[in-house]
Amino acid sequence: VIDGEFVAAVRQGDAPAVARAITRVERGGQDARDLVRALFASGGRAHIVGVTGAPGTGKSTLVNVLAKDLTARGYRVAIIAVDPSSPFTGGALLGDRLRMQDLSGTGVFIRSMASRGELGGLAAAVADALVVLDAAGFDILLVETVGAGQGEVEIARQAHTTVVLEAPGMGDEIQAIKAGILEIADVLVVNKADRDGANATVAALEMNLSLNSVPQDWRPPVLKTVALTGEGVAELADTIGAHRTYLERNGRREEKEAARVNEQLRGLVQSALLEQAQADLAPGRWKAVVNAVRERKIDIYSAAEAILADSSGFQERVV
Amino acid sequence: VIDGEFVAAVRQGDAPAVARAITRVERGGQDARDLVRALFASGGRAHIVGVTGAPGTGKSTLVNVLAKDLTARGYRVAIIAVDPSSPFTGGALLGDRLRMQDLSGTGVFIRSMASRGELGGLAAAVADALVVLDAAGFDILLVETVGAGQGEVEIARQAHTTVVLEAPGMGDEIQAIKAGILEIADVLVVNKADRDGANATVAALEMNLSLNSVPQDWRPPVLKTVALTGEGVAELADTIGAHRTYLERNGRREEKEAARVNEQLRGLVQSALLEQAQADLAPGRWKAVVNAVRERKIDIYSAAEAILADSSGFQERVV
Repeated sequence: VIDGEFVAAVRQGDAPAVARAITRVERGGQDARDLVRALFASGGRAHIVGVTGAPGTGKSTLVNVLAKDLTARGYRVAIIAVDPSSPFTGGALLGDRLRMQDLSGTGVFIRSMASRGELGGLAAAVADALVVLDAAGFDILLVETVGAGQGEVEIARQAHTTVVLEAPGMGDEIQAIKAGILEIADVLVVNKADRDGANATVAALEMNLSLNSVPQDWRPPVLKTVALTGEGVAELADTIGAHRTYLERNGRREEKEAARVNEQLRGLVQSALLEQAQADLAPGRWKAVVNAVRERKIDIYSAAEAILADSSGFQERVV
Repeated sequence: VIDGEFVAAVRQGDAPAVARAITRVERGGQDARDLVRALFASGGRAHIVGVTGAPGTGKSTLVNVLAKDLTARGYRVAIIAVDPSSPFTGGALLGDRLRMQDLSGTGVFIRSMASRGELGGLAAAVADALVVLDAAGFDILLVETVGAGQGEVEIARQAHTTVVLEAPGMGDEIQAIKAGILEIADVLVVNKADRDGANATVAALEMNLSLNSVPQDWRPPVLKTVALTGEGVAELADTIGAHRTYLERNGRREEKEAARVNEQLRGLVQSALLEQAQADLAPGRWKAVVNAVRERKIDIYSAAEAILADSSGFQERVV
């Protein structure tokens, strides 16, 4: 049961209410679902920007200055900093307090989110938090992730515009290439561009784009920034705006949204079906099958078939 | 239908047959499942070691020298190098050829694997490849991943022993802490330990362990290596052996295997259930529901309930 006054406060963008709403969706369960239900219809306007890059690329600093630049342009901005795998501790990042201090008085909302350990749990919680922030009237939602791994790609897929960050001189390889995240980039940024090797990094990214990219209407530009001095940040904000316009004029925004909804729906439906199937099994059956596989009495695919045959939905179909 | 001669060749550890078998499980589908079925009972003895670390930590070099050290001790060693997210290109890593040259004549089997873009697809393909290598009689399977994100954690969960790699001076933060992967480490390694700052990195890791670790029988040791000279690699191999002994003597190996089988079974069963539910829907129904969410006519949770109510298994239960 969701309190109407609380929902109204979130819709008005009341920061403490928004923070509490995110805590509730982070916890998951029926309450999270009810809250998303109550807020969902109020959203749909926010532009979601994913910013992804390896540790050491200066991602947090850049996101902070970008948020300030966008705020100065009149946008209301929120940041979600995703800590990909404190699946085990669920703790907030060190340095969060410093970031909040840096943003205090700007009106930028910032929140870090960590996984609860379930696979796909973090992406679902981030999706729900985006619904909250969207309903709360924020214009631009910056989602910051450490770029690598499929979980990250899943989160990046929720963004309308994905910015991939690189820094010069962090070892011999371009990390974004190594981590395979270049393919999801709409905008590439070489941060710490005052360092040695920045131009080489730009050139390597440009070359990689030429080699691998499919010809498209939108060719990801490669920008240079120095987050600490703010150099290049206005150009980055302009480019994000240009990409937004591109998406809206070409029906690409709808395509992206449909792909995102499709993924999310698949995840929800299959979890519910699994839960139902497990509830239908005889007590101890699931565990017995797991043990049979562990002891190599049956293989994993035969085990899955055995469970499917047992679950009542399937039996009714088979008989 | 699986050719018995082919299966026999894989079981005998014939390298070309093993390579072809991995290609087949990588492709997925019925053929992959049949092959795993045919090979599954022959495995169960290999010790699986996950080695995870950010780009630039010297992971590939360390894995190569570790493989050579273990081979010199009489073990048969295979390496799977996981490229977490070429989900879009599926290409092999640059530098693969050089690695293979480095290992040629050692008897070490090496293979890189990339995702096919489905969520969880890479973890499933790696699991199947491990079944192949295990059946082929390899004693130690080294699985190398770029450490960050939930996909990585999922792959790391398949290992009996997880080694997390760090390097000094790669920016201000300890990458493993930032990426939240310290919690999955059984052994910590500071590679490139001849560089400035190595001792500071060791101290930071030790402190983090003291602060965050739950008291356990096994406290992850922090080792120093220089992969390029081989320094510290024998100690790493010894420590992996000690961890293996620890797991076997304390019933922890069985626990880890059960957790792994449980995860894998959940994934297989829920995909099959979703496929069945989608097949049961009226044509166009899934897409119509996706569009209704995209247009904000209904929220995602109501959409999932609508699909569940439509799928025949659920209807029979509700009526």
